[in-house]
This record gives sequence, C-alpha cells and structure tokens, in this order.
Amino acid sequence: MSDTPFPAPPESKADLESGDRLTPKFGADGLVTCVASDAETGEILMLAHMNAEALARSIETGIAHYWSRSRRELWRKGDTSGTQQTITEMRIDCDQDAVWIKVRVAGSGASCHTGRTSCFYRTVPVGSQPLDDLRLAIED
Amino acid sequence: MSDTPFPAPPESKADLESGDRLTPKFGADGLVTCVASDAETGEILMLAHMNAEALARSIETGIAHYWSRSRRELWRKGDTSGTQQTITEMRIDCDQDAVWIKVRVAGSGASCHTGRTSCFYRTVPVGSQPLDDLRLAIED
Repeated sequence: MSDTPFPAPPESKADLESGDRLTPKFGADGLVTCVASDAETGEILMLAHMNAEALARSIETGIAHYWSRSRRELWRKGDTSGTQQTITEMRIDCDQDAVWIKVRVAGSGASCHTGRTSCFYRTVPVGSQPLDDLRLAIED
Repeated sequence: MSDTPFPAPPESKADLESGDRLTPKFGADGLVTCVASDAETGEILMLAHMNAEALARSIETGIAHYWSRSRRELWRKGDTSGTQQTITEMRIDCDQDAVWIKVRVAGSGASCHTGRTSCFYRTVPVGSQPLDDLRLAIED
C-alpha cells in the first residue's frame, strides 16, 4: 500500500467542503487529528493522530490505527493491551483535517493508558479565577 | 491578563497525569486541540484550537473562545454569527494537550460555518477499497 492512497485535496474550497471525495488535508507533520468516542455511550474516549497509512488501514480494516508521535510508528491500538477499537462509524469534518470515529473497545474497555475508559477523566471548573489556583476534579 | 496564566507543566509525567493542577501542554505552535460536543445530544460539533488566552477566557467566562489559525486572532465563536457556545462542562485529557468542552449553542445552533449543526456531516464508508474510489455520504 502506498503511503498516500488518497487523492490530493481539490483547489476549490467549495469542492473540499461539499464534495463526496475523501481528500484528507494532512498537516505539515503529515497528520490529521482523530477523536474517538464510545459507540454506545457517546463519551469521548481519546484524541490521537493519523497519518495517511493509519487512516487508510483504519478505513480498510475497520480497526483503529493511529500514528504514535512519541514512538514515531504506526500504532494499531490494543495490540499489546488487548483494547482494540472496532470502528462502527467514521466521519470527516468540513475541511477534511479532522476525523471522528465511533468505536467499540475490546478487552478491559480502557482507551486511556492510565487504565481508565476515557483520557478525559479530569474536569476543569469553569468560572474559576485566578487560574493558577484552580483545582481539577479527578475521576477514578 | 498574561498570555500564559497557567503554571508550567510538571517535570514528572505522573504529576502531569494524576495531579489536580491545570498545566496545559501547549504545542510548538502554542496551541492545544479542543473538541466541542453538544451538551444535550453528545454529538461532536467541531474541532478547533486554543492558545493560552483562548483557554483562559473560556474558563473564566464560560463562553468558548478559540484561536483562529487562519486569521491568527482570538476568536469568540458566534460574535458575528450569533452562535455562541456556552460551556456546561470542560475536561482535559491525561497529558493535558487536549480539551473537551460540552456546549449549548445559541442562535441557529450551527457550529459549522456551512450552516450545519456539526462539522462532521460526511460519513466515510469503513471497509472500502480501493480508497480513491470511495464516496462519502453527505448529510444536508
């Protein structure tokens, strides 16, 4: 498989936004952002990144693949932890630089490396001031 | 208000991930990614970016502020369109480089500049091959 199996984005913004072609707009780092939510509960589980290969494999296989920025390698999530993510739906946004996947998580159901279901386990108290005094509420 | 009203991230990864201090990890571009979902339906509305000032103002006022990468300016969403986003809950992820806000949208309720409720109005058919032949399903 080529590293860039997708057509290039059209020059016209209208075509990019209203067309039925998947022409992802990868950033200078070669990545699009991907947000994964739980297919059942709707909870946002994590935010990660995909390069062209990760996006292509996610589409072809229906299993979430990401690009690990820290390890600089293709990352089929769950290969070591058993928490593979099966994609039930994939969407792309207006300017095609962000992907939303709804997933079912295998194994323990944890999408966060801390063992929690979601990476978003801390709440920021809105209305707080001054900001350096605020305290996050933490879920177990 | 200072441009960097937040404490610096701690050196310890454990402190960053388990602590109750908000120490956002802004990227080299000075931004964190923010995903906004509908407080009622849970639908993901849009993905955008916040610099320190946008994040600080969002916390202090409870109204979503972003950093417009195209216009290179602070952007209180809805100021021209009437579709302000009132934040009902804000969360931050494990490594504190992504923010999730649940919002109520004023006015027309559109969070996408195309006039749609959500920017994610196109579905990618998972399981498709070859990729350059796939066609997106488009919602009105």
